[in-house]
Amino acid sequence: DYWPKQPVSISGNQTCSPTHAAPCNTIGFLQKNNSLGEEGRLAGSLSERQKNLFSCVNSDRDARFCRTETDFSNMFARDLLPAKNGEEATMQFLLELVDILTNYVRKSFDRSTKVLDFHHPHQLLEGMEGFNLELSDQPESLEQILVDCRDTLKYGVRTGHPRFFNQLSTGLDIIGLAGEWLTSTANTNMFTYEIAPVFVLMEQLTLKKMREIIGWPPGEGDGIFSPGGAISNMYSVMIARYKYFPEVKTKGMSAAPRLVLFTSEHVQILNSVGFKLFKFLYFLVIPQSHYSIKKAGAALGFGSENVVLLSTDERGRVIPADLEAKILDVKQKGYHPLFVNATAGSTVYGAFDPINEIADICEKYNMWLHVDGAWGGGLLMSRKHRHKFSGVERANSVTWNPHKMMGVPLQCSAILVREKGILAGCNSMCAGYLFQPDKQYDVSYDTGDKAIQCGRHVDIFKFWLMWKAKGTIGFEQHIDKCLDLSQYLYDKIRNREGYEMVFDGVPQHTNVCFWYIPPSLRGMEHNSKEYREKLHKVAPNIKAMMMESGTTMVGYQPQGQKVNFFRMVISNPAALQSDIDFLIDEIERLGRDL
Amino acid sequence: DYWPKQPVSISGNQTCSPTHAAPCNTIGFLQKNNSLGEEGRLAGSLSERQKNLFSCVNSDRDARFCRTETDFSNMFARDLLPAKNGEEATMQFLLELVDILTNYVRKSFDRSTKVLDFHHPHQLLEGMEGFNLELSDQPESLEQILVDCRDTLKYGVRTGHPRFFNQLSTGLDIIGLAGEWLTSTANTNMFTYEIAPVFVLMEQLTLKKMREIIGWPPGEGDGIFSPGGAISNMYSVMIARYKYFPEVKTKGMSAAPRLVLFTSEHVQILNSVGFKLFKFLYFLVIPQSHYSIKKAGAALGFGSENVVLLSTDERGRVIPADLEAKILDVKQKGYHPLFVNATAGSTVYGAFDPINEIADICEKYNMWLHVDGAWGGGLLMSRKHRHKFSGVERANSVTWNPHKMMGVPLQCSAILVREKGILAGCNSMCAGYLFQPDKQYDVSYDTGDKAIQCGRHVDIFKFWLMWKAKGTIGFEQHIDKCLDLSQYLYDKIRNREGYEMVFDGVPQHTNVCFWYIPPSLRGMEHNSKEYREKLHKVAPNIKAMMMESGTTMVGYQPQGQKVNFFRMVISNPAALQSDIDFLIDEIERLGRDL
Repeated sequence: DYWPKQPVSISGNQTCSPTHAAPCNTIGFLQKNNSLGEEGRLAGSLSERQKNLFSCVNSDRDARFCRTETDFSNMFARDLLPAKNGEEATMQFLLELVDILTNYVRKSFDRSTKVLDFHHPHQLLEGMEGFNLELSDQPESLEQILVDCRDTLKYGVRTGHPRFFNQLSTGLDIIGLAGEWLTSTANTNMFTYEIAPVFVLMEQLTLKKMREIIGWPPGEGDGIFSPGGAISNMYSVMIARYKYFPEVKTKGMSAAPRLVLFTSEHVQILNSVGFKLFKFLYFLVIPQSHYSIKKAGAALGFGSENVVLLSTDERGRVIPADLEAKILDVKQKGYHPLFVNATAGSTVYGAFDPINEIADICEKYNMWLHVDGAWGGGLLMSRKHRHKFSGVERANSVTWNPHKMMGVPLQCSAILVREKGILAGCNSMCAGYLFQPDKQYDVSYDTGDKAIQCGRHVDIFKFWLMWKAKGTIGFEQHIDKCLDLSQYLYDKIRNREGYEMVFDGVPQHTNVCFWYIPPSLRGMEHNSKEYREKLHKVAPNIKAMMMESGTTMVGYQPQGQKVNFFRMVISNPAALQSDIDFLIDEIERLGRDL
Repeated sequence: DYWPKQPVSISGNQTCSPTHAAPCNTIGFLQKNNSLGEEGRLAGSLSERQKNLFSCVNSDRDARFCRTETDFSNMFARDLLPAKNGEEATMQFLLELVDILTNYVRKSFDRSTKVLDFHHPHQLLEGMEGFNLELSDQPESLEQILVDCRDTLKYGVRTGHPRFFNQLSTGLDIIGLAGEWLTSTANTNMFTYEIAPVFVLMEQLTLKKMREIIGWPPGEGDGIFSPGGAISNMYSVMIARYKYFPEVKTKGMSAAPRLVLFTSEHVQILNSVGFKLFKFLYFLVIPQSHYSIKKAGAALGFGSENVVLLSTDERGRVIPADLEAKILDVKQKGYHPLFVNATAGSTVYGAFDPINEIADICEKYNMWLHVDGAWGGGLLMSRKHRHKFSGVERANSVTWNPHKMMGVPLQCSAILVREKGILAGCNSMCAGYLFQPDKQYDVSYDTGDKAIQCGRHVDIFKFWLMWKAKGTIGFEQHIDKCLDLSQYLYDKIRNREGYEMVFDGVPQHTNVCFWYIPPSLRGMEHNSKEYREKLHKVAPNIKAMMMESGTTMVGYQPQGQKVNFFRMVISNPAALQSDIDFLIDEIERLGRDL
C-alpha cells in the first residue's frame, strides 16, 4: 500500500530551546526504526526523551524546526507531506537537503575546491561508487535520495566557482538563489493574474523599468520573459513579420513576398567543447548557437538561406555599408528585406554593432531593427559603458538576458518591444465570440496570450529580488567590476611573451580573445600550414588538461579563418585579479610543453 | 563603495553542539550592528561569547550551520558570498529564508490555511502594508529582502494546497521541490555534457524510459525537455515538416506546397479566469490555450487558417471519419495534409482521441501522427488506465508533461520522437566545415543543437529524483488515486439535486465537468434564453466568491454552445475525499442564493 497507513508520528508542537543556546525550536526527533509497518513507531517514548533533552521556552514567532540527526534509511517519499503526520519528516528531509546545498555553496566559493571532477559519460553511466542513474520500479529510501543529491552535485560542474569562466553565465548569486528557492516553493506559472498575482505585477514593473533604461518613451511598449535568448530573438522575428505582414499569421508565409533577415556573421558561435582525456584526443567545436537568428529563420518558415550574414570589421562589428549593399541586392532580386539584428555583445568577440548607423539604414528602407543584447544588455546599467548601446532607443525590439552579464540564475531572458499591443496581436489566439461584452477586467495583467508558451516558468522573481537587494547601483558596480577585470587581463597579456591577441584594442565587452603560443611554436612562420595546424590544437589540448585537473575552465573556438583561440569572458562576481593570474599561470603550466 | 572593504567577520570554523542537544555545529553568531563601516565590527567579542554558549564536540561530518537569531537590518547583499568572510552571513541568510519557505510549505498542506488572500492589481501596486513592488536605485537591507519574500508568498496563491484544483498542475511534491532547490543551486544549463554531465545523462536515460513506456522499439528514438507543452507541440510540427519537406529548413515555406495541420476542435481552451469582487461583476473567459497547434501553425509560417479543426463526439473525442473527410477535402483543393494531432487528455473534457483509428488514417495518407499527451501522459504509468492510450506506439511523436498529472514542479515537458536523428536534423545549424574530421567524441551527449533554444533550463533533475524516490509504482499509485477521486466526485454529483453533467458517462481522465444549478433556476426551461444567460453567470459568480473567501479554487469555462460550467480536475496528491466533499459544500453554500 503506497499511501501509508502508519504514518511517521511526531512528538507534538513543542517550542523548545537547547539549554543555554540560541533560541531554537523543534517539534520532533526522528530516529532509526527498522520496522516500517510497526504500530506506533517513533511515538511516545521519543517525545518523552525529547522533553528531557530540550527545555521549552516561549517564542513569539512561528514554531521553528531545528535539524536533528534523523535516520532516513527506512523513510520514503510516501512518508512526507501530504502524508498524515508527515510534517516532521518533511521538515527534517528538507533541512537535511539544505545542509547539503549550503555546504555545496560554501565550497563553491572556496578556491581550494576543484571546479569539476571530470568523468566520461560511460563512467557515469556505469555508476560511480554506487551512484546509479537508472530509474527503477520501486522507490528508494530518503537516505538514498539524499546520497543521490550529494552525488549529483559531486559529479557536476561548479558554475559558481570563482575560476569558472567557461560560459557567458557564471557565478552564483545568493539573493538570486534565494529567489529561485522561493519560486520553486511557490510553484505556479505566469499564465494569469489569478494564479500568479504578485509575479505578474513584478514582471510588468521590471519590464517597464528595463524599457525606461533602454530609453523608450514612458508608458509605451511591451515585453515578456522567455526561456532564453534564442526564443527572445525568435519573438523579435515573429513580431517584425506580424508588423509588416500581419496576414502571415492566418494565411502563412505564402501571403508575403520572400522575406529576408540580416544578422552579423559574427553571432553564430556560442560555445565550444574540448576534451582530451586519457588515450584519446577528442576535440570538438560546436558552432551551433548563436545561430539564433538563423534557427529562428528556419523554424518560422523563412528558410535559413533567407538569413543573410553581414560582414564585420576586424573587431567583429557589422559594417553598415555591407548591410546597405546587401539590402539593395536583396531588393534587386525582388525579395523583401524585413529585419536587421544588431548584436550588442557578440558571443566570441563581445562586439557591439554600430546601432545608430544601422538604425539609419533601417529607417531608410522601412525595416525592423532588433538589438540582440542577450550578452551585452547588462552594460545598459552602467553609466560608464552604456554608450556602447548608443542608438538602442531607436530599436523596435531588444533581447536582454539578465542571466548572463547580470548574474541572475538561469533562466532569465527578456524580449522588449517598443510598440504596445503588437506582441499580443502577433501571438494571441483569442476567439472574440467567447469574450463577454460586459467584461470590465483589465486583461493587460493576463500575459498568457502574448506568449507562444502556455504555462510559463516564473523567471521574474529572482531578478526582481536581486534588483531590490542590490539596487540599480549594485548591478552597475558588478558590470563595471567585470569590465575592469577584463581590462586587467587584457593589459596583462597583450605584450606578454607567448600571447597573441585575436583582435587589436581594448575589448568592448569582457571578452578577451587570445592565442597562447607554446615555446615550441614561437618564432615559426605564422602563415605556414604546420603552424596553423599545431596552434589549432593548443587551446583544445590545454582545455582538456584543465578539465582533467579541474582547476579552472575557459572556452575556446575558431572564428572564420582564425584557428582555435581562447575566449575569456568575465561575468562571475566571485572572480578577482588573483583568479585571472591563476588562469594565466594555469595555461602556461599546462601548455608549456605542447 | 559597493564591494565591502570591511567584510562581516566570523568567529572561526568551530564545530559546536548545544549542551545536551542533538549535534549541531555553528561557525558564528551575527548580531545587530548599527555602523556598517565600523572597523572590526562583529569581531572578537562575539566569537568569545559564542564559545561560552556552545560546547564544542567532534563531528565526523562537514561543519554544519545552525540558524541563529541574526539581525539582518544592517546587512546587505554585498555582505554575502563572494564577499570576503561572507560565509556566515550567507548561511544565516539562506537558513532564515529556508525557515520562511518551510513554514510556507507546512501551512500550504494545512486545510485551515486559506488557498489565497486575494487583492486587486491596483491594491498590490499601491503597496500592501509596506510591500513595495517598485525597484529602486539603492539596495534594500537583507531584513527587508526577507520581508519581501514573506510578502511575496503571503499575497500569492498556494498551488500546493489540498483544495487548489484550478489548474492541470497542482500540488507541491516535496521530492520535486528538493530537486528544484538543488537544480537552482547547481545553476547550469543543458547545453553540453561539458557543463552539465550528470543532468545530460539523466535526461537521456529518462527520455529512453519514457519512450519504452510509450512502447517504441528499444534503442530507437529521441527527445528533449522543452519549456512547456506548447513548445513541445511546436517541435512536433517542425519535425513533421522537416521529415516530409526538409528543404523548408533552408528555403522556407515557399519550397513546399500549402501544408495543412489537423487537430481537435476540443483542445483550444485551457484556462478560465473569473472575478467578481466587491461592487463589480467581472468575468472573463480566456480561450487562449491550448490553441497550441494553432499557435504553432501561426508561428511556424503555416498560417492559422491552415490548421483544420476536427469535429468531436459528445465526449469531446475526435471523430475519425471527420478527419478522413477533411483530409480528402484538403487534398481536393490541392493542399498537402501533413500532420494530425491526436489529443490524449483534452484540457476541458479530459477526452482521449481514438489513436488507433487516427493512426490508420495517417498511415493511409502518409501523414505525421503526433499525440499530445501533455495532460494525459501520466496515465501511461498506470496499468489500469494506459489502455486509453491504445495505439500510442504508432505515433511519430508524443508530448508528455510530467509537470501536469505526475505532480512534477513546473516546468517539465518532454517531446518524444520515434525516429532517431530527425530532431537534430531539423534544428541543428552545424557548419560542417568547422567540425574536425578526426572527431571521436560522441556528440549525442551534447543536446544543444537539437533544441530551438540555446541555454536550456535544467528541467530533468526534479523529475529524475521523484522517479527515484517514488519508483514507477509510486507514479502509478498517484495516477490511480487521482482517477479514483475523480470517480468519487462523479458518483457523488451525477444524480445529486442541483447538478447536471456536461457529458454523460464516467470521465476518461480526472476532468469532471458539471453545472451547478442554483435553486432559483431549477425547473426552468433549459433551452430558454433567460435560463442560459443566467446559468452562464453562475460558475463565474461562485468562482469569484470562492476567491474572495479564499477557501478553494476550481476552473470554469464554456465549450462550444455550452454555457459556463465547472471543470474539476484532480492532479493534487494532497486531495482527499473530504476535500471533494468540501468543494461541493462550498459550491452549494456560495451558489445557493444566486
